[in-house]
Amino acid sequence: MSFKTIGTQASFGGKLLKLTHEASTTKCTMALNLFLPSQASASKKVPVLFYLSGLTCTGDNCAEKGFAQHKASEKGIAIVYPDTSPRGLKIEGEDESYDFGSGAGFYIDATKDPWSKGYKMYSYITEELPKALFSEFKELDESRVGIFGHSMGGHGALTLFLKNPGKYKSVSAFAPIANPSQCPWGEKAFKGYIGDDKQEWKKHDATELVKGWKGPLDVLIDVGTNDNFYKQKQLLPENFIEAAKGAAIDKGVNLRFQEGHDHSYYTIATFMDDHIEHHAKHLL
Amino acid sequence: MSFKTIGTQASFGGKLLKLTHEASTTKCTMALNLFLPSQASASKKVPVLFYLSGLTCTGDNCAEKGFAQHKASEKGIAIVYPDTSPRGLKIEGEDESYDFGSGAGFYIDATKDPWSKGYKMYSYITEELPKALFSEFKELDESRVGIFGHSMGGHGALTLFLKNPGKYKSVSAFAPIANPSQCPWGEKAFKGYIGDDKQEWKKHDATELVKGWKGPLDVLIDVGTNDNFYKQKQLLPENFIEAAKGAAIDKGVNLRFQEGHDHSYYTIATFMDDHIEHHAKHLL
Repeated sequence: MSFKTIGTQASFGGKLLKLTHEASTTKCTMALNLFLPSQASASKKVPVLFYLSGLTCTGDNCAEKGFAQHKASEKGIAIVYPDTSPRGLKIEGEDESYDFGSGAGFYIDATKDPWSKGYKMYSYITEELPKALFSEFKELDESRVGIFGHSMGGHGALTLFLKNPGKYKSVSAFAPIANPSQCPWGEKAFKGYIGDDKQEWKKHDATELVKGWKGPLDVLIDVGTNDNFYKQKQLLPENFIEAAKGAAIDKGVNLRFQEGHDHSYYTIATFMDDHIEHHAKHLL
Repeated sequence: MSFKTIGTQASFGGKLLKLTHEASTTKCTMALNLFLPSQASASKKVPVLFYLSGLTCTGDNCAEKGFAQHKASEKGIAIVYPDTSPRGLKIEGEDESYDFGSGAGFYIDATKDPWSKGYKMYSYITEELPKALFSEFKELDESRVGIFGHSMGGHGALTLFLKNPGKYKSVSAFAPIANPSQCPWGEKAFKGYIGDDKQEWKKHDATELVKGWKGPLDVLIDVGTNDNFYKQKQLLPENFIEAAKGAAIDKGVNLRFQEGHDHSYYTIATFMDDHIEHHAKHLL
């Protein structure tokens, strides 16, 4: 048993397990939430959606305020809500910024010291965590996995999907950081975690990655017109669309601008049913 | 304009207004949230639900985590999320306990000094706040008002309904403190706000009030079997049912025990659609 269950929460007919486990990629105890719909059993495995949270968040924010369990419960889809970074590695400066270090792992593997010590959220999310989950929870179907997320987690969802053709059957994002090489949040993170070589940055940038995408594409993206970070050009979804156009795959991108909506969980909650329906198309 | 709008949040097709106003009953600035569904207009007024929160909460908790806007938006019902007490009155001991003073107004009018200065949440919720709202928001229909709440707010919803025949067209509660005269939370609050006379306490106790109820009754109550406060006998819903039986009106009480559910907003969110449907029956 690699996971400890520290709590069980009844939610929308299923159960939300509050788990921790020792992770070797991130060199610390990682907390996460796992929602199991009532349909899940070892003899009837259910598909799994990974939800990647944004800056400052943990696995709790969306579990409490995103209402993904509402539709996932109806459809019979499990949801994994991981944390957004290692915690407590005692790296100098780790807790100084809201947009770097703790709560801001950016779903990449840091190569620069001292962050390379445990800031390996890419390996954690794509390898260590799913391996541990599928080995312990026999009700999860490892052949049907989707990924989505918000803001930094939207960047995570898009890039993990695009870096691993076929690994994820479905993808969507709320207010993703869609072109991190070109925005202050992404520049700070890439510089800090992987250094100054901008060619390296491109490998972790959805707008760059989509240019070389060869497979089928069906991405749902929602961005609020009243999202301050959109207005401050931290998200740049237009660049992602332009890149997809350049690669003649923009028909596979459903970018919706949502009037009056901001960057908050109120927006995520409002469009969550749509996102789960989108994933269900590919996972069920 | 008695209200200041300090924020507007798009939510499930409607908008959530973050408001403040100067309240004379509570002698301070009160904050609240008002959800207006898209159907609301001065020419097509919508019914209004007051949601009363529990101990330690503000008007934000349920607006963020209760999922009420989901179904209210579909039905075209406005929701008012008031605060749970006055704030910052500088009464000695005001911020010392989680279950008395700030965040714990108990929806009664304190008669005992020093609390009688502004702890008048009964008058605030039943008179001052609705009067101010109906005068300013012409899209709200004052002839169609319902009330519901959680824990201390469930007590509030039941007692305000039972004290004011006809004022509220519908009522429901999540994990209400259903017999406060007989539980530690209620005893502490009643003793502190209105003194030692237990005959006075009965006037603010749903289990006592339901004994004398004459009108039609249709109350929906959900309580989780895994609710620690239920187990600790803070809620006592059975006493409420027994009292309704004694008055031969227990057919009007739909008390549901929800397997595995606790006292949290996960429970509220799970059954919120049912509660909004229940109110819609009476309000639409």
